[in-house]
Amino acid sequence: MTDAAKFEKIYERERVKIDRELHKIFREKKPLSLYQPASYILTLPGKRLRPFLVLLTANVCGKKFSEVYRAALALEMMHTFTLVHDDIMDNADKRRGSDTLHKKYDLSTAILSGDGLLSIAYNYLIKDANVNTRTVIAEFTNGLIEVCEGQSLDKEFETRSKVSLDEYLTMIDKKTAIMIETCCAIGSLLAGADAGTVKTLKKFGKNLGMAFQIQDDLLDVIGEEKEFGKKIGGDLIEGKKTFLFLDALAKAKGKDLLDLKKVITNKGIKSNEVAHYRAIYERVGTFESAKKKIKFYSDKAEKCLKQLPDSGEMNILVWLTDKLIKRKY
Amino acid sequence: MTDAAKFEKIYERERVKIDRELHKIFREKKPLSLYQPASYILTLPGKRLRPFLVLLTANVCGKKFSEVYRAALALEMMHTFTLVHDDIMDNADKRRGSDTLHKKYDLSTAILSGDGLLSIAYNYLIKDANVNTRTVIAEFTNGLIEVCEGQSLDKEFETRSKVSLDEYLTMIDKKTAIMIETCCAIGSLLAGADAGTVKTLKKFGKNLGMAFQIQDDLLDVIGEEKEFGKKIGGDLIEGKKTFLFLDALAKAKGKDLLDLKKVITNKGIKSNEVAHYRAIYERVGTFESAKKKIKFYSDKAEKCLKQLPDSGEMNILVWLTDKLIKRKY
Repeated sequence: MTDAAKFEKIYERERVKIDRELHKIFREKKPLSLYQPASYILTLPGKRLRPFLVLLTANVCGKKFSEVYRAALALEMMHTFTLVHDDIMDNADKRRGSDTLHKKYDLSTAILSGDGLLSIAYNYLIKDANVNTRTVIAEFTNGLIEVCEGQSLDKEFETRSKVSLDEYLTMIDKKTAIMIETCCAIGSLLAGADAGTVKTLKKFGKNLGMAFQIQDDLLDVIGEEKEFGKKIGGDLIEGKKTFLFLDALAKAKGKDLLDLKKVITNKGIKSNEVAHYRAIYERVGTFESAKKKIKFYSDKAEKCLKQLPDSGEMNILVWLTDKLIKRKY
Repeated sequence: MTDAAKFEKIYERERVKIDRELHKIFREKKPLSLYQPASYILTLPGKRLRPFLVLLTANVCGKKFSEVYRAALALEMMHTFTLVHDDIMDNADKRRGSDTLHKKYDLSTAILSGDGLLSIAYNYLIKDANVNTRTVIAEFTNGLIEVCEGQSLDKEFETRSKVSLDEYLTMIDKKTAIMIETCCAIGSLLAGADAGTVKTLKKFGKNLGMAFQIQDDLLDVIGEEKEFGKKIGGDLIEGKKTFLFLDALAKAKGKDLLDLKKVITNKGIKSNEVAHYRAIYERVGTFESAKKKIKFYSDKAEKCLKQLPDSGEMNILVWLTDKLIKRKY
């Protein structure tokens, strides 16, 4: 069996296990009015990237998966909490191919179930926080604070006519990359890794997270609809100022520029206009820029990994980084 | 100076100091879109009972106020987080005499600022959690979980036609009393108190919290409008199943019973009907029952205090309990 096949098998095995554990968390917990909706959203199918990263980074630093499993689940719960509240703010109907929580239930239930998910996340994190307790919880909390700040910037950008690419990168750093970084921090800290290793793995996570988000922006326009589980061009339709949009806006001239500005003025486009805007992106070289930027961050992520001692545990992180930036959905 | 005057002076001094510290927390923090609304709601005038209890219980166990100040502020932030999200769920316009967060800003801002307040609460708690770190954070988290469960029950009760007094007591135990208990747990734990003392102070907090909430229900009907800062009879107008309402419902007969059932069917009453319902409460002895129940819990709270060594630090807790159950707003 090749390494890649072996790693794929490990990922698949843990993903199934994470799903099984997520199903157990709220089983038999009362009141049902709080925990049933929380369980519904938590068990919708997902990549489980964040908990998997906690397992892998702990493993690289010498801990068994089983020793940090509850912390890993905590990171998935914290992530799901942000999805639930973001979906309310974005007025989104669908999440992971199913109804969002506030659509399936109602606003109050969604707010409260989000809060519940976050509180149980802390609860699970504490269960595994035997080593570096205070730092682990501080990292988790810092991640949470930055996610709130990132989401706040994201909402701010919606109503602003001008957003620079740098501002956008700061926003996704806070909104997305920080959580990937936090997973790596917590995995390594729980394994009692030295400060240098923790720092390197955090840097790896941050860069992986940046690559991951820009990849997400790219897939929104060129991804495969069925697999991606979202409408292609959804960001354009909603008028989101993504990496691609801002890059194109900075490069376009003449009619292309006017058309891009219309997206801002009209707060989005119609579904049948997506192809037109995709052509603009192609014309001005935005897909090239996005791919270059993804490579820039994923190269940095892999460079961090090369600073750490070579091992089988380590190579799966290299493989995962490669897999994520090559994903089609 | 009498003890009472001395204690009143301490409370007033700390309340001013807590307010000053609360004003500082979000000053110069960015993004403003997140922290300005959070600061607005956090600095509206309040009793600051929760942080004061952290200070007092830590002090009883041998720590200076200054050593647990950030933990005290954390409890006020956590409390404010619950108010912000509850106000959205209750569709409330006013809080502490001013606009609620979602009224002054908007829904997204209120959800996110609530989340932000909670995350900064953890951040502040960690700063002071040098002693019993894991237990302190576990207590705080447990408080948060119970508050979510309590709020979920409260929302459930709104749509249920039958709620027993016992169910109501469970609900306020989770929604209100737990946080008062958590304050006492955290104050004593941070002071490194022995398990017995922590347990006694938690029990004190729980009973004080129960007395406090039923007192709140009572003041809603017989309180002084101007000082209470809320509309008199607001719970009746909104059709809330409070201690008073459920007690009256269990005792009333004939037309009184029919009138009470109408409150459930119509999901509330008109402002000009408050006096009529107050008369029913009077007639069936509900005010008596409420006062008895408040005395029951506050006696239990004071009994807990008597189990601890007598001291000046301790007597202020006795005084505070007495003050709270005698308050008029």
